[in-house]
Amino acid sequence: MQPLMQTIFYWSDLFGTAVFAFSGVLMAGRLRMDGFGVIVLAAVTAIGGGTIRDLIIGADKVFWTVDSWYLWVILGTALIGQFMAKLPRRLPWYILPLADAFGLAIFTIIGAEKALEYGYSGMVAVVMGVITGVAGGMIRDVLAREIPMVLQREIYATASVLGGIIYTGSLALGMATLLATVLGMSGTLILRTAAIRWHLSLPIFALHR
Amino acid sequence: MQPLMQTIFYWSDLFGTAVFAFSGVLMAGRLRMDGFGVIVLAAVTAIGGGTIRDLIIGADKVFWTVDSWYLWVILGTALIGQFMAKLPRRLPWYILPLADAFGLAIFTIIGAEKALEYGYSGMVAVVMGVITGVAGGMIRDVLAREIPMVLQREIYATASVLGGIIYTGSLALGMATLLATVLGMSGTLILRTAAIRWHLSLPIFALHR
Amino acid sequence: MQPLMQTIFYWSDLFGTAVFAFSGVLMAGRLRMDGFGVIVLAAVTAIGGGTIRDLIIGADKVFWTVDSWYLWVILGTALIGQFMAKLPRRLPWYILPLADAFGLAIFTIIGAEKALEYGYSGMVAVVMGVITGVAGGMIRDVLAREIPMVLQREIYATASVLGGIIYTGSLALGMATLLATVLGMSGTLILRTAAIRWHLSLPIFALHR
Repeated sequence: MQPLMQTIFYWSDLFGTAVFAFSGVLMAGRLRMDGFGVIVLAAVTAIGGGTIRDLIIGADKVFWTVDSWYLWVILGTALIGQFMAKLPRRLPWYILPLADAFGLAIFTIIGAEKALEYGYSGMVAVVMGVITGVAGGMIRDVLAREIPMVLQREIYATASVLGGIIYTGSLALGMATLLATVLGMSGTLILRTAAIRWHLSLPIFALHR
Repeated sequence: MQPLMQTIFYWSDLFGTAVFAFSGVLMAGRLRMDGFGVIVLAAVTAIGGGTIRDLIIGADKVFWTVDSWYLWVILGTALIGQFMAKLPRRLPWYILPLADAFGLAIFTIIGAEKALEYGYSGMVAVVMGVITGVAGGMIRDVLAREIPMVLQREIYATASVLGGIIYTGSLALGMATLLATVLGMSGTLILRTAAIRWHLSLPIFALHR
Repeated sequence: MQPLMQTIFYWSDLFGTAVFAFSGVLMAGRLRMDGFGVIVLAAVTAIGGGTIRDLIIGADKVFWTVDSWYLWVILGTALIGQFMAKLPRRLPWYILPLADAFGLAIFTIIGAEKALEYGYSGMVAVVMGVITGVAGGMIRDVLAREIPMVLQREIYATASVLGGIIYTGSLALGMATLLATVLGMSGTLILRTAAIRWHLSLPIFALHR
């Protein structure tokens, strides 16, 4: 990618980190945690998925240990987020889910791209995209003693799977990285936005015993 | 081992993967999860233990990232298992626990064997056998917001420990790998089957404060 | 450090391992676990944090796989601890929290020191100190289906953060390792002891929606 695109990509990544961290802050507030709990839930939500991905693909270094901006964004979000969360509501309700969908889209591409960079197959790249996008939120939910939302709720992880398949498929067809990124992110964003707008869900699998 | 034995071993591993994945499918059904949740619970149950083992022993690659059959078996089990689980019961009740005991036995040997291959001590090999055999089920239970069954229930992990000790002990005594494998698997299978048949349990440690 | 100090440090580490393992034993007893459950809870509490740290910093080997004393201390604590926990109370109530504070202090320094040794920044070193000190207890609580105590309770992790900052800051100022260790451990111990004595807490962040 060109330098300008890389800069946009990097800032999008940090934006996604802040959005995910804020969802951890909200959960911590619902559970009446102290300041340390707020930071931990913000951190595991924002960088938990990428950490698991880096461990599994055997990255030379886990990403946030060599670029301290991730930790600073999390700390800043944990501090500022506590005040923002207490403000009387002014943002329309759909702003946060949309920002979260954007974070999901960018995290998915980053995860899939990194797996390909390390030489893994397209199938593993899709899995790594999903892990990067949803594992952090799953750890947040487990720490909060809830069944992870993504296992039950409306289409969320599925949007990440779709984005990952489009991205790796586009690259396999010989498209430029930039185009594949735009297509992949669009896939996640459109499906996730549609799911939010029309409350789409996958069928539930229920056993009665 | 001879090529024939290796083939049998590999197919047994994939069979164990399917059985463990199916126990994740059943749990997902009890919790009314969607299709993605079914796949995640099937995957963490089937490959969660081996993944943790590979991270801790520092394997060059996590096993399922370089052999995509594991992911295909999990996907297939998640799809087919949802239909099978809805069929009117026809199998005798003990089929599934016995298949699970076989999966536990083979996973234990694979975990212990891989640790030895990477140069770890017999004690660490036994621990890695147990992690391979039971950690996936523990993650499944945590995601389902249950206290892991293996920490409370009848003899399960203990059967894995026994198999691991017999296997590494036999190798230390100079036995051939094939014989040690048969003895170790038999140890796990016999103890686990006896525990199922006669409802054997370890003593419970209970504090009343 | 001089050989004598290293010996003291190593024994302190094993002492902290036993104390943390014993807190896992107590939790297992409250949940009526069997013998295997006792060992697992003892183990994850005692070596869970250090294991995550070693995976993230990319240590050559996870510490307890190359020094079997850690596993023996855990096994011994799991066995002896079950009897000790049943004895009529004789120890004053504050002994266990104080021993735990000592374990927290030493684990924090060990985690920070190892991160620095592997070339990470001071900020990452502080994070690794906290992970070493508190992540094991968090896994114990998750396995016991509780919201991790350290996210809600009186100042605990904060004492670990303070110790880590003092330690890495002192080293950055050019102090000798021994002095930085003593100062860092003192910071954790004093803050944690004060928190126990006067029931100090961080402010709670609570959202009412």
